[in-house]
Amino acid sequence: MSHPQTTFKDTVFHGKSILSVRRNTIGKTTLHTQLNQLRSTGRYDCFKLKWHPVYDDKSMGWPVPKHLFWDSDIGKWIEAACYFLHHEQDEEIDRAVQELVQMIRGAQGSDGYLNLHYTVVEPEPSKRWSNLRDMHELYNAGHLIEAALAHHDHYKDDLLLEPMLKYVSYIRETFGPNKDQRHGYPGHPEIELALLRLYTVTGYRDAYDLARYFLEERGNPTGQDGKHYYDWETEQRGESQWKRPDPYPESRAYWYAQAHEPILQQHSVEGHSVRCMYLLTAVADMIYLDLERQAGRRDLLPALDVEAWKTAATRLWSNMVDKKMYLTGGIGAVKQWEGFGIDYFLPQGTDEGGCYAETCASIAVMMFAERLLHLGGTGNPDRRYADVMELCLYNNVMTAMSLDGNAFTYVNQLASSNKDLSARSDWFEVSCCPPNLARLFGSLGGYVWDYGTEGNDAYVNVHLYATAKVTFDVNGKPLTLEQTSNWPWEGTVKFNLSAPPSTNTTIRLRLPSWSGNQYTLDPAPSQSNIGVSQGGYLTLSPSYVSANPSFTISIQGFKPRYITPHPYTNQRTLTLARGPIVYCAEDTDNSWESNHFKDVAISRSGEVKEMPRVDERTSEDYVALQTKGWTRSLSQWDAKQDGESPALSASDESFGEERDLVLVPYYFRANRSGKGHMRVGLLDRCQ
Amino acid sequence: MSHPQTTFKDTVFHGKSILSVRRNTIGKTTLHTQLNQLRSTGRYDCFKLKWHPVYDDKSMGWPVPKHLFWDSDIGKWIEAACYFLHHEQDEEIDRAVQELVQMIRGAQGSDGYLNLHYTVVEPEPSKRWSNLRDMHELYNAGHLIEAALAHHDHYKDDLLLEPMLKYVSYIRETFGPNKDQRHGYPGHPEIELALLRLYTVTGYRDAYDLARYFLEERGNPTGQDGKHYYDWETEQRGESQWKRPDPYPESRAYWYAQAHEPILQQHSVEGHSVRCMYLLTAVADMIYLDLERQAGRRDLLPALDVEAWKTAATRLWSNMVDKKMYLTGGIGAVKQWEGFGIDYFLPQGTDEGGCYAETCASIAVMMFAERLLHLGGTGNPDRRYADVMELCLYNNVMTAMSLDGNAFTYVNQLASSNKDLSARSDWFEVSCCPPNLARLFGSLGGYVWDYGTEGNDAYVNVHLYATAKVTFDVNGKPLTLEQTSNWPWEGTVKFNLSAPPSTNTTIRLRLPSWSGNQYTLDPAPSQSNIGVSQGGYLTLSPSYVSANPSFTISIQGFKPRYITPHPYTNQRTLTLARGPIVYCAEDTDNSWESNHFKDVAISRSGEVKEMPRVDERTSEDYVALQTKGWTRSLSQWDAKQDGESPALSASDESFGEERDLVLVPYYFRANRSGKGHMRVGLLDRCQ
Repeated sequence: MSHPQTTFKDTVFHGKSILSVRRNTIGKTTLHTQLNQLRSTGRYDCFKLKWHPVYDDKSMGWPVPKHLFWDSDIGKWIEAACYFLHHEQDEEIDRAVQELVQMIRGAQGSDGYLNLHYTVVEPEPSKRWSNLRDMHELYNAGHLIEAALAHHDHYKDDLLLEPMLKYVSYIRETFGPNKDQRHGYPGHPEIELALLRLYTVTGYRDAYDLARYFLEERGNPTGQDGKHYYDWETEQRGESQWKRPDPYPESRAYWYAQAHEPILQQHSVEGHSVRCMYLLTAVADMIYLDLERQAGRRDLLPALDVEAWKTAATRLWSNMVDKKMYLTGGIGAVKQWEGFGIDYFLPQGTDEGGCYAETCASIAVMMFAERLLHLGGTGNPDRRYADVMELCLYNNVMTAMSLDGNAFTYVNQLASSNKDLSARSDWFEVSCCPPNLARLFGSLGGYVWDYGTEGNDAYVNVHLYATAKVTFDVNGKPLTLEQTSNWPWEGTVKFNLSAPPSTNTTIRLRLPSWSGNQYTLDPAPSQSNIGVSQGGYLTLSPSYVSANPSFTISIQGFKPRYITPHPYTNQRTLTLARGPIVYCAEDTDNSWESNHFKDVAISRSGEVKEMPRVDERTSEDYVALQTKGWTRSLSQWDAKQDGESPALSASDESFGEERDLVLVPYYFRANRSGKGHMRVGLLDRCQ
Repeated sequence: MSHPQTTFKDTVFHGKSILSVRRNTIGKTTLHTQLNQLRSTGRYDCFKLKWHPVYDDKSMGWPVPKHLFWDSDIGKWIEAACYFLHHEQDEEIDRAVQELVQMIRGAQGSDGYLNLHYTVVEPEPSKRWSNLRDMHELYNAGHLIEAALAHHDHYKDDLLLEPMLKYVSYIRETFGPNKDQRHGYPGHPEIELALLRLYTVTGYRDAYDLARYFLEERGNPTGQDGKHYYDWETEQRGESQWKRPDPYPESRAYWYAQAHEPILQQHSVEGHSVRCMYLLTAVADMIYLDLERQAGRRDLLPALDVEAWKTAATRLWSNMVDKKMYLTGGIGAVKQWEGFGIDYFLPQGTDEGGCYAETCASIAVMMFAERLLHLGGTGNPDRRYADVMELCLYNNVMTAMSLDGNAFTYVNQLASSNKDLSARSDWFEVSCCPPNLARLFGSLGGYVWDYGTEGNDAYVNVHLYATAKVTFDVNGKPLTLEQTSNWPWEGTVKFNLSAPPSTNTTIRLRLPSWSGNQYTLDPAPSQSNIGVSQGGYLTLSPSYVSANPSFTISIQGFKPRYITPHPYTNQRTLTLARGPIVYCAEDTDNSWESNHFKDVAISRSGEVKEMPRVDERTSEDYVALQTKGWTRSLSQWDAKQDGESPALSASDESFGEERDLVLVPYYFRANRSGKGHMRVGLLDRCQ
């Protein structure tokens, strides 16, 4: 299993491709501004276990105190920092990581327990694990485990891994199927995927068993004393069911945490979208480990009903992508539970009923997608997953950070409104998203491709295009594959392979769905040398590759195209896209519209012009688009008296003068002056 | 003040006009089936104060027990029964009313207190008034007051009025501004309008003062000990704020009960729609009483800042009608709080995010509208209110009962879905709607017109058209105005006036907005004899009326027309309407569509044919409509692989073969065989 968090080290981005530029910005700027935020907010020193005034602050939604996620903020930042340190030393970052690790070590109890809240704020031992549903102990542990893995990988010591293994051992004793163990699982999944990575890296079997227990036990209606675990622990706390957390619109809304029924029985993605994606990422990891067991590489693991789990994972993926995903790769329409609404409930903005599309959620979709890419076997990656991974990356995820790397979004609406302008913030009280962006970009190289060897055979499956180089060993000698491209603006990607002699290298290149499988390959192959796999990857045979270690693919699909959400969303809008980039209208580029482009229509028959541009401040290239637009007349409604019957004759839909409309990439929004008006889906002029 | 609940007695419906037929059905059938329901469910005998097994049932949403509204169910049925008994004796109904009244009398405490729950289920005196927010004591009292008024009016005795006056006196002592009084108000408004009617009928000043106190105190953020009353009483109960009732999506969601801020400061209708409308009906009554005070007819009442209250009432009316009302007159999109969503959030069905449109809510809109008609003075009724009143009556309200009078709806969605088919039920656990329909139709004559005299001057403002006759005294002699029409199918209404000699009668006839003010009057008037008022009423002067005691108006607007919701609803649908009737498609009349007509489009340019029909079982006339329809192709979506990226090229919208589509009145839905598929708003074909 090659997790991106491990394999990213093999990949170096260079040149001015957008991924490279963005990763650089995070390394040079974002890590530092985030470190400053950690320091100024009290997070940095929290593992000194002194009192901080914020611990008295009860203003967050019940029952979550503001500092509850601080452990994870630290963990995620350490993880990100280590990813960047791997490629480039940075003294301040390095010093901070080391100091944080010392503080974390000092905060661990002698029994292995390690948690800020239950050590400082509610230190009575009986409070530990008393509220798995809400209190994020296991979530925080998960992020610290991930930090430890990154730290171990970079520093090659166990300063953080050792206390985390001790903590995991303690957790493993606490939770499990035995009579004297608790039959619980985290309200916010995360530790499962961390544990499976921990097992993959260290072989520590308890980590696997614990993760598997959490996944298999989740949603058991009679898990503890014949009761749902969250019911049982609620009773243990002496609380009634109606003492429901603020995000619960109803009592026992365990679907909020995907614990309403066992995972294998779930037919739709429900509740908090980040929790759901972290959970399913772990499910995919568990499936993969069983496939490895079947292939004889994990002899000691107990068998899994892998078909049932695969069916559940792909069923939930399809429900999400087909019915609960925005065109930008965002998921989660409902603010109250930061998650999924009913099927096809995908309003573009809060003035239409919601649009959450949390940054972390799309990052987690990328994680889930990356894991799913492995389940078909190395010879059969499925572009459905990589397409969505790329869609998330370039749109919902990349829009979450300003070009200068100093400002972020938590929520990524598709349309602004007066109450929710298109804008970014320096930091958040619940600040999961900014360090998550840093983690993702730190390990981004691991998402670009996967690869492996067996004897003299090697393969590289290329999922993302950029300018980047990967190096890995074949029989102890380095194989290097370099790609050079101006993706996502152009589809021409030049490859250069340097492999040890007698290596049989197969290269698979994703043909994105939107390419319509249209491409040219130079040098031209013979029929027998290539093929397009069922999963949509162009497979270059070892014979083609060895004859042509330098080759160029030109992928089509960079003509602007109209995309539209499913009709059952009631949107009836058109959006412009080009390659993987989804576009939006911003007020800066356009004549003033009073209501966030809500009345602006475009037409499928309208000609679209491309306008290559360079951003003034960052010198970053991008392609803007221009087409014809019209403003819908609301005169019928304006003419109505206030409070007059709604059931009057409808005028024909009418639209104002045709005019030019300029659109920019969605990720680019809110980087210039402007009034924060923005919209992705514009009215379909229907002609 | 002429409340419809009082003036209805002057009006007799006859002929086979739909209102007459429906009222007859309720009198002959519905009252009896509802009486049977009262009996079989335990409600009928509840005031015997014995234990009923349902009192142990805690399965309703917290904190409301199932029997909490039983007092009001009894009250509303008595009220309705008395309205019908007035026009026609019915021995079984009469006997039941008298028995119920005796039981109610027997249930009253010596101090005047009268409530089922706090007498039988939680009888400790300290529990009384301990939870105004949720426990409906004052709501139930209000409905019993209304029952008492109807009972008094029909039986001409005080058997029910006397105990209710005693109860009001007790309540008046309990609540008010004095130090030893509670500064509370009902969580479910209703008693305010009941008290103002009680005052209007009896002159009992305490009733007025109490209602006014409730209205003025509501939403006071510091009303009791410096706290919001609901916060204060929550503390008194020893409960935390997070012990929030099930309909509260968030703690302290006092907007649920329109108590989030003082009424005068409210700018939008929020929360539970029935509560909101009952509250605003009382506000309109309070305003009207102050207008009467200014006119010298209520000398002893303290002055009111009437302009501020009028501004608030009309502002809230406009917000509701313009932004939160369905084309059928339904209000309330959100199931959780049975009420309003954000502006323009008006999905047609639960599969689109909600559609509640409770029967009671539209009945209450009619009450609010009827009150507002009086605020401009007798010479200036405003058709905006009467138009909406009629819209509600013929659509959202009338659809709530089967033609046979035996089945009802609580929720009136504009489109069915697999989970919520278009269907009716015999009864409900919370059964406010069925007896509310009976009350409304019992007193319907009072909504048709209002009228009055001053010396020899008389006026009749005609708001609704039907076949009906009103009789009232002018100087001790009867004036009779009869209208004969086939409304709502035809706009021709024949009037016959019989007035005492030397009476100067002004008649004002509503020209509905949808008529475009187009009408003909026969005999033709001279210019000076008529005029259309600012409020949209055709005013016939005494000279015209005396010269033409028989005249006929033909109001236009019975050609089918397309109506459409505000574009910001994201609906982009067309609905057919004809006069006041809104149409829907039902599966019975049409070729099978698998998904509730969700993909069926019609076009504004499509010719619409009228098809007069007679319902087989009831012999009731109606007009069906036929137009051309198309089914939208979803082939683009069907062709997509499961779980494939949503950001693919959009095909052109395409529609199948043109075919005939038959539409029936919305009120007519679910009266024949069929599979429960129905839709009001059909896709706009945009051409």
